[in-house]
Amino acid sequence: MTPTDQSPEGFVLHPVGTVKSELKKPVLGATKDGIEIKEDMDKIKQQHQQIKSLVSELEISPEFDGILEGIEDFSHIMVLYWPHLLAQERRSLRKVHPMGRKDLPEKGIFSTCSPARPNPVLVSTVRLLAREANTLRVQGLEAVDGSPIIDVKPFVRTLHGTENPSIPDWMKKIHAEFEAKDE
Amino acid sequence: MTPTDQSPEGFVLHPVGTVKSELKKPVLGATKDGIEIKEDMDKIKQQHQQIKSLVSELEISPEFDGILEGIEDFSHIMVLYWPHLLAQERRSLRKVHPMGRKDLPEKGIFSTCSPARPNPVLVSTVRLLAREANTLRVQGLEAVDGSPIIDVKPFVRTLHGTENPSIPDWMKKIHAEFEAKDE
Repeated sequence: MTPTDQSPEGFVLHPVGTVKSELKKPVLGATKDGIEIKEDMDKIKQQHQQIKSLVSELEISPEFDGILEGIEDFSHIMVLYWPHLLAQERRSLRKVHPMGRKDLPEKGIFSTCSPARPNPVLVSTVRLLAREANTLRVQGLEAVDGSPIIDVKPFVRTLHGTENPSIPDWMKKIHAEFEAKDE
Repeated sequence: MTPTDQSPEGFVLHPVGTVKSELKKPVLGATKDGIEIKEDMDKIKQQHQQIKSLVSELEISPEFDGILEGIEDFSHIMVLYWPHLLAQERRSLRKVHPMGRKDLPEKGIFSTCSPARPNPVLVSTVRLLAREANTLRVQGLEAVDGSPIIDVKPFVRTLHGTENPSIPDWMKKIHAEFEAKDE
């Protein structure tokens, strides 16, 4: 680490590992005007369902040997990762139509899960299936292959979870459409 | 942002705002050998209980005007923040006794919620009480006054939460002791 890691210009993150996944490209791609849906909506729904059962690997670099010890005793972990395929200029977006859908009202980036945000540290809670030395096998991670891993934490309900969170109607609508495929 | 934001040396985070809180110093302080308990255990339990009802403010910088629009329709948000009082060298820890307690077995940093981690991006899910322009009032945030805010996301159960997570016995023991005070 360099002396500039906590300089006034910002904080520097050094990836601790890499995601290995069959998922090769993001489901959504961001444009300057919002999020553009690359494939048709049905394809997105299908991918969304596939990701639920997708098994990925988190390869933690050997220099962090020992840092995973005991994590196998948790059923779920939080993965913090960087969307490395996101172009730098997309981080300056302020508002988007959720999932690029012009039928939904424009919202501030912090009201959405868009990866195109000022500091694109993405958070995903996933099931931990197994640990083998410095590799974790997890289920349900949306990160694409090659994503740099920023941090791994145990999922602790008192700190990270909550009972009965409520979400706006526009997001309920998206979720309902995603689920409809299966039911 | 500079061209080095996605250099091979790492990713640069630029804080988007600052936490305003009555909490002036962290409950726990990290040392080279682990986490040292600064105050006695009773004091820590008391603070832990106080934080549950503590109301803090997230002041988002004016340059991000519009980025919060619509967030008031969520009951809970995730706050990603940087523990700015943590010394740079503490980021090289690999293992700790959870909460500095020598009676608990040493664990890898990624098995704990210790702020002393390679990339100390801390995550807290809190209740959103109100939004006033660029300021969010939240309940239950452990971040100390002045903590730089890295990101704010809506808490979305399908992505960030989980049903019935299980945690190891050593963490159950800590939680049970924290709760005992109130019951």
